[in-house]
Amino acid sequence: MVDAALPSALPTFADVAAARQRLGGVAHRTPVMTSRFANQASGGELFFKCENLQRAGAFKFRGAYNAIASLTPEERGRGVAAFSSGNHAQAMALASRLQGVSATILMPEDSPAMKLAATRGYGAEVITYDRYTEDREALGRKLADERGLTLIPPYDHPAVIAGQGTAAAELFEEAGPLDMLLVCLGGGGLLSGSALSAAELSPGCTVIGVEPEAGDDGRQSFLSGRIVDIPVPQTIADGAQTTHLGQLTFPLIRSLARDIVTVSDAALVKTMRFFLERMKLVVEPTGCLAAASALEGAVDCRGKRVGVIISGGNVDVQRLAALLAA
Amino acid sequence: MVDAALPSALPTFADVAAARQRLGGVAHRTPVMTSRFANQASGGELFFKCENLQRAGAFKFRGAYNAIASLTPEERGRGVAAFSSGNHAQAMALASRLQGVSATILMPEDSPAMKLAATRGYGAEVITYDRYTEDREALGRKLADERGLTLIPPYDHPAVIAGQGTAAAELFEEAGPLDMLLVCLGGGGLLSGSALSAAELSPGCTVIGVEPEAGDDGRQSFLSGRIVDIPVPQTIADGAQTTHLGQLTFPLIRSLARDIVTVSDAALVKTMRFFLERMKLVVEPTGCLAAASALEGAVDCRGKRVGVIISGGNVDVQRLAALLAA
Repeated sequence: MVDAALPSALPTFADVAAARQRLGGVAHRTPVMTSRFANQASGGELFFKCENLQRAGAFKFRGAYNAIASLTPEERGRGVAAFSSGNHAQAMALASRLQGVSATILMPEDSPAMKLAATRGYGAEVITYDRYTEDREALGRKLADERGLTLIPPYDHPAVIAGQGTAAAELFEEAGPLDMLLVCLGGGGLLSGSALSAAELSPGCTVIGVEPEAGDDGRQSFLSGRIVDIPVPQTIADGAQTTHLGQLTFPLIRSLARDIVTVSDAALVKTMRFFLERMKLVVEPTGCLAAASALEGAVDCRGKRVGVIISGGNVDVQRLAALLAA
Repeated sequence: MVDAALPSALPTFADVAAARQRLGGVAHRTPVMTSRFANQASGGELFFKCENLQRAGAFKFRGAYNAIASLTPEERGRGVAAFSSGNHAQAMALASRLQGVSATILMPEDSPAMKLAATRGYGAEVITYDRYTEDREALGRKLADERGLTLIPPYDHPAVIAGQGTAAAELFEEAGPLDMLLVCLGGGGLLSGSALSAAELSPGCTVIGVEPEAGDDGRQSFLSGRIVDIPVPQTIADGAQTTHLGQLTFPLIRSLARDIVTVSDAALVKTMRFFLERMKLVVEPTGCLAAASALEGAVDCRGKRVGVIISGGNVDVQRLAALLAA
């Protein structure tokens, strides 16, 4: 993690509200969809917030854009850096370009060609590294120091968390107060931001994080009261292959979320198929976490109005076909 | 065709407006989406109307619901019938159930199990027939006569056409006036209804129908000035395997559309892939017709604001995988 240089104050809902202002007319206000099939399967009334339809294909655009917009003019002039093999890379590349800020993104040299191309396509400079022999955090810090860049971490940053919270804020605005909110959990940026919005806009709403069975560091941390670090988990939910919560996301989650549950990779594949067949949506495995918990019985939705955040849709067509064939 | 018993008067925009009233709060107001990638590829500014996200997965729900809502109480009491192997079947089944009308749907006995199940799941009685030895139109008429049912044809019916026109009406309302509107063309219900809306809500908008290369009966009819009948076309666009335009749709298209163009099956597959990868949407081959004409150069979109109707998203996951692998 690269939180040494970060402000230590936890973000509040006021930061989410400020992020909404900055994102107005820039981020898509993604649709909220419903499905009779999902309601029957879960026994609740589900409201899906479709961040797979967000710019660059995931909620990550919100936090990246807000973080860059929160920099001083001087910092913006020097440029930003990020390391990511996933959605944060593309989000940072796009958000930087839109604000006229140069971006340098560290990505593993064996990243899918499509992701490298997409990140470069948004105008970022991509520097590749060998993920098996090189330490990306050290590389990132060295790069930032040498070039005077501001490193924007993928989740443990107040402006990133505040930006991610805007998706849930839109959901409450559209669906009204909810009994429960189910949120995909990796490093906790989306979950902690969503929890800030729920506490303000739908008091009493039970906020639950959902992570892959194989990577239950969030649940372990939540139960034990300290940040538990695990080895890189083996799961198809590549966006949730995080090894620990953050210094900012953990205390927010600990105080604002009610529980953290897990779902299996098999449940994620079933849920991907549900989205394709029933809702005509492409959702990446990580993006299925929250929905899988409702559809596969990891949480009890019966009789409740339940918000479900679909976090992203970035999955190669080949990988999609392979997952469905398995 | 089963238009013998139909009113011969052509529908007008007033019928579309009446359909909007009936569909309010019942049909989804589907989202209008944009894609920077599509804009770059086409040179225009494209507005995609996502009827793949409509109830029962296609625009067909609009026409079916409106036609049933237009019946007399006595007709509704006796029930409705339809024959279809595709989206009209599911649309009729759902629209009937919502209005408390019994529906009998004739479907080929070798229809995909999923489609048979979905139609039955909506509460319709499904009667299967052998598509190689039995005449579905004769069967349908016999069934309707024997049971006193009202047969609702898939496109050549004023209330069906008016219902289909509501999608374009919503698009103009959301996107504003457009220079061009691209519409998928099978039997012409969607195209003629859309053209009625364009003429009223965006005068000067060029309306263009798009059909599969192998099934260019619409183009032939448009150019020759008479309804041309062709053998069942071999194309992956199964919703456009119609053999001729209708007695109502043809004159509307002839007077209100500017042109009819065709696209290849290969262009449809490329467009399906674009929707999956870039827009995170599942679109069936037929639903890709209009978009393919813009993305693959069959129409010139440069410098224009262009509406593109995505007609439906009902494609089995297996078939989807097979089409993408081919």
